[in-house]
Amino acid sequence: MSASRQGVRAADAIARARQLVEPALRDAVDTLEDERIRRIAAYQMGWYDADGAPTPGGGKAIRPTLAILSAEAAGGRAADGVPAAVALELIHNFSLLHDDVVDNDVERRHRPTGWVVFGTGQAIMAGTAMLTLAVEVLVAAGPAGRRCLPALLTGVQRMIGGQSQDLELEGRSDVTLEEVLRMEAGKTAALLSCAASIGAIAAGAPDEIVAGLAAFGHHAGIAFQLVDDVLGVAGDPSVTGKSASSDVRAGKRSAPIVAAMSADTDAARQLAAMFADTPPTSDHDVASATALIHEAGGISWASDEADARFAQALEELGRLPLPNPGAAADLAALADYIVNRTR
Amino acid sequence: MSASRQGVRAADAIARARQLVEPALRDAVDTLEDERIRRIAAYQMGWYDADGAPTPGGGKAIRPTLAILSAEAAGGRAADGVPAAVALELIHNFSLLHDDVVDNDVERRHRPTGWVVFGTGQAIMAGTAMLTLAVEVLVAAGPAGRRCLPALLTGVQRMIGGQSQDLELEGRSDVTLEEVLRMEAGKTAALLSCAASIGAIAAGAPDEIVAGLAAFGHHAGIAFQLVDDVLGVAGDPSVTGKSASSDVRAGKRSAPIVAAMSADTDAARQLAAMFADTPPTSDHDVASATALIHEAGGISWASDEADARFAQALEELGRLPLPNPGAAADLAALADYIVNRTR
Repeated sequence: MSASRQGVRAADAIARARQLVEPALRDAVDTLEDERIRRIAAYQMGWYDADGAPTPGGGKAIRPTLAILSAEAAGGRAADGVPAAVALELIHNFSLLHDDVVDNDVERRHRPTGWVVFGTGQAIMAGTAMLTLAVEVLVAAGPAGRRCLPALLTGVQRMIGGQSQDLELEGRSDVTLEEVLRMEAGKTAALLSCAASIGAIAAGAPDEIVAGLAAFGHHAGIAFQLVDDVLGVAGDPSVTGKSASSDVRAGKRSAPIVAAMSADTDAARQLAAMFADTPPTSDHDVASATALIHEAGGISWASDEADARFAQALEELGRLPLPNPGAAADLAALADYIVNRTR
Repeated sequence: MSASRQGVRAADAIARARQLVEPALRDAVDTLEDERIRRIAAYQMGWYDADGAPTPGGGKAIRPTLAILSAEAAGGRAADGVPAAVALELIHNFSLLHDDVVDNDVERRHRPTGWVVFGTGQAIMAGTAMLTLAVEVLVAAGPAGRRCLPALLTGVQRMIGGQSQDLELEGRSDVTLEEVLRMEAGKTAALLSCAASIGAIAAGAPDEIVAGLAAFGHHAGIAFQLVDDVLGVAGDPSVTGKSASSDVRAGKRSAPIVAAMSADTDAARQLAAMFADTPPTSDHDVASATALIHEAGGISWASDEADARFAQALEELGRLPLPNPGAAADLAALADYIVNRTR
């Protein structure tokens, strides 16, 4: 199947999932008793602007779509995946709300971040309320929902652990590539792995299917993060919506940067020296550092690794005896979409 | 029974609960996969100092003790209340860890707060990990644990709502006493109400018992917060461990302060004028404001209201057909202890 037909297939799956999940997501947010918390959550979800006026939009709905397709691929109905899809989208948005506080980021999705609009304290509290709400949604969804709880909670703990590691790596100069990949497995892959398998859990699928879908989501998640890392160094600002080489400016220890610094070449040593104290700030230094990352092989390493992980994800998916091949093809298309979205 | 015999009874119940709950609490924290998160959680629990050396101590264990007594009073065994007790102590400590970030507080229990030692971002993430762990503990505790989930999650949402309101009130000059009491019902009473009833839920008690114990905990919780508010204005620094009139300095909208400002007297109007813009800062102004709060009746109102709420708590408890009168007496003693602890 051509890349564009894969893209159409993924977009169609996302549109179907959105239609199913968004009403349930809005109902869930409406149950938040505190009016202020409810307003911050609705803003974070992209449903309202800072003044409370309705807005179109919201996120890419990757995780809810994975959850719905996971239920279908395992032989369940799309509806079986809805509570888990709602829970995952709440978790994802709680993590964005907190991350923006932690990273001091002022803009997301072309709007001021939650803490900028509502204050740091309120953003922290609304985030924990959204995390709590995610659990409430599964608890309220009967035996199938409660069966999903351990997987969701494990995914949340791994995500938090990965974010904590990410923050710790920023301040260090002796970061290894192994550490970066372990951090990314937590920060990004854990929740995608959870999303890709939780629908199957809700649908009552056997352990082998659940584990296989989790492995598919894990590898796709690593590939997704590696592509994100590449874009953070070499992405086109007009496409990424961030400044050029944003990860270089922020002093991130992302995979291509650490891969480049770890090489045994002059470019690698020059780069490591530039990153030793504070990250480069002037446009000239940022451009030099970016060129050194390319030269030391950081970009090609991360791109190749992303391709290998994507292939591994498809291999995991391919060997599963899934009762619904159409939904399995949708999962493959979605993985293709998230990994190859902006390359 | 004399106050001191009540105190002995409460201290005995706390010591018994601690012995039962602390090993389970340590086991739970040990399951946190991420080493850094685990270390922050253990520091917050009071088990280690900033360098990782073991320390004696920890909090007052009010909530775990309530949960254990709740199980016993409803006719269950103390062990029935352990998972809920662990979950509540984790929730309480997550809320302290986040609160110290939100309020920018640098000291708690005579030690630097978590964010001072580990950084703001790490403290936020460790807090959400502790919240998640609390849910994991109940999920892992079989049907009795899972039966407790809705009550715990509702308690958490109300607590977060109350903390959010508390923060919002700080910046306002038109706060009503009704708003303050509603905020305190969330901030403090919701989790104590949950603690006082969740053991009964775990023990499989009938709804009437659960609701009655929740009402007992609710009123005791409001009384507890009102006493705390009185101490925040009129407490002895050598007893409270805070600076004199700490809530006056912080510009809090606590019950005695708002009660005083709402009175129709000259002292009330002078006080409102002093609080109109920024809170008083010099020792002289703080002393004047404190005297005006007394004069306008704020302290006596809050003390009387605390007494009334405490009496109401005991009344709720007294009319319940509890199968274990010894445990019910322990609950009354514990309420007496937390309400009258420092008066």
